[in-house]
Amino acid sequence: MPDSRFARTPEPPYYAVIFASQRTEGDQGYAQMASLMDELAQQQPGYLGAEFARDASGFGITVSYWESLQAIADWKAQADHAQAQRLGKRDWYAGFELRISKVERAYNFRAQGAA
Amino acid sequence: MPDSRFARTPEPPYYAVIFASQRTEGDQGYAQMASLMDELAQQQPGYLGAEFARDASGFGITVSYWESLQAIADWKAQADHAQAQRLGKRDWYAGFELRISKVERAYNFRAQGAA
Repeated sequence: MPDSRFARTPEPPYYAVIFASQRTEGDQGYAQMASLMDELAQQQPGYLGAEFARDASGFGITVSYWESLQAIADWKAQADHAQAQRLGKRDWYAGFELRISKVERAYNFRAQGAA
Repeated sequence: MPDSRFARTPEPPYYAVIFASQRTEGDQGYAQMASLMDELAQQQPGYLGAEFARDASGFGITVSYWESLQAIADWKAQADHAQAQRLGKRDWYAGFELRISKVERAYNFRAQGAA
């Protein structure tokens, strides 16, 4: 099992940014930006990891995990990320819902034999 | 844009159950169960909606939204759902991470011209 798809988060409490989005058609530079944002997020103070999935229809969910609301606010304001947010609304997303939540409890499971 | 993929949630606060999972290979009755659980969840008191995406590798994220922690506990204990949870660990999931969080802020965007 590709265990790396799961974020290795600490014991709660911490914060989750739940980002559900519908992509527009075509790439329009999205893949390159997404890869860069992933790299930059990992350099942000307070970043704990992320999980994401997008299906063939272009609907996707990314959940990123953070130590604090301040860490989320700092990432929102990061200059390159702010530019990506502008292009996201102009070119890449037909729509999105963004929710900021505080993780209070967590539980996991791995099947026997799974890596 | 298939707007129905987004959950129509009220103003925060409310709760989100973030369920990231890696499916095993093959269906093994999963699709039928998932459809039934979706129907049953909609009948649960305190259910506010859900969003989900799974990619071709079988990695997926479902986020369900609830009015209260009690509503989440009641759904966890619901008999048919409890049976599905057992089968999930036996047959359907190579692994999962489940996180319960309190949504504190929400923000959305729809592109001009999107349905």
